[in-house]
Amino acid sequence: MRESADNRLLLHLVTDRSLSLGRSLVEVVAEAVAGGVTCVQLREKTCSTREFLGEALALKALLQPLGLPLIINDRVDIALAVGADGVHLGQSDMPISHARRLLGPDYLIGISAESVEDAIAAEQQGADYIGISPVFSTPTKTDTASALGLEGVRQIRELVRVPLVGIGGINQANAHQVLAAGADGVAVVSAIMAAESPQLAAEAIRVSWGNRPGGRRRF
Amino acid sequence: MRESADNRLLLHLVTDRSLSLGRSLVEVVAEAVAGGVTCVQLREKTCSTREFLGEALALKALLQPLGLPLIINDRVDIALAVGADGVHLGQSDMPISHARRLLGPDYLIGISAESVEDAIAAEQQGADYIGISPVFSTPTKTDTASALGLEGVRQIRELVRVPLVGIGGINQANAHQVLAAGADGVAVVSAIMAAESPQLAAEAIRVSWGNRPGGRRRF
Repeated sequence: MRESADNRLLLHLVTDRSLSLGRSLVEVVAEAVAGGVTCVQLREKTCSTREFLGEALALKALLQPLGLPLIINDRVDIALAVGADGVHLGQSDMPISHARRLLGPDYLIGISAESVEDAIAAEQQGADYIGISPVFSTPTKTDTASALGLEGVRQIRELVRVPLVGIGGINQANAHQVLAAGADGVAVVSAIMAAESPQLAAEAIRVSWGNRPGGRRRF
Repeated sequence: MRESADNRLLLHLVTDRSLSLGRSLVEVVAEAVAGGVTCVQLREKTCSTREFLGEALALKALLQPLGLPLIINDRVDIALAVGADGVHLGQSDMPISHARRLLGPDYLIGISAESVEDAIAAEQQGADYIGISPVFSTPTKTDTASALGLEGVRQIRELVRVPLVGIGGINQANAHQVLAAGADGVAVVSAIMAAESPQLAAEAIRVSWGNRPGGRRRF
């Protein structure tokens, strides 16, 4: 993983256009970034490749000047086409071995782990970070395993050394608990995507953890 | 386009697992190849990336020893991961300029053209072959433009030089007409995928055109 990537994983926005209340994706992301999002994962499961590419190019143009990473969910080809910073792969996406061969060493590869075993395997296979999914139960994704809870985060933290990002049902009320349990960052979908003000929603999460445990990082 | 690719485009099977009557994809393709299919395009729009990759690897293992090309629909990353022979891109897939940059000069890139204008543009942009789609109206794809007909094939043949493959509603009764109108090959979905015997279905198409016009090729 590249230098100082930890900081960049702190508040991860995972996109879902279906929640954006009719606003364009780039509009929501621009607001969220103004509110303190440190990393954006483009996850769009239902659009065409050309549309996906268009969204990725728009986000790249927004994020690159700000030095914020763009991660592409699932689609290694889109990541390569736009020169993104990484990909995020679920357990039914391309295996990390194939993805690393196509992407080379410089792209971040995040892996979703739905269990302690997944997390250990992902680290062994060279994941740059692990998404613990879901921490809490969530209405956004209906195909996920049962919630791992804060105890799951703690267990995984004890067993793996790569950065951990919690995802699933995380909002301003519980984000600090996920960090306190050992995660290096949290990933948020609906709490920002569906907020009337994505900027205020992001700020509220940033404020909520105050002087959080593990505050050795620059935020 | 690589040497002698024309011959390989003659009878193109485009896959659709939903039509396979419960048989595995590799089983149907193996039979179709025994019946004379010269090229296989893996087109699966609804499965996960990992499943798509698994199907692509299985087809690659079947086709490579036979010297028959494997073309991947839409997914440049899958094509790269398995070392396929090419990709086929629709008008809502990745633009050819991006795909060529990722794939390099050796992969075939086929482009679907739904109009004369699409076909001219695809040739100008460096397509290795053009899929004229749909030639006839078809129940397999519901999102396509209106049928171009044999007259559309003739018009495009007059205006572009790259190989043309007709697709859409093609079967043993009309395949010879598509070749006579100037196509270099035909692509078939349901006439083979949904046949009780994919081998006999492929053979029937091969037999149907007899000493077809343009018989300068080795078939």
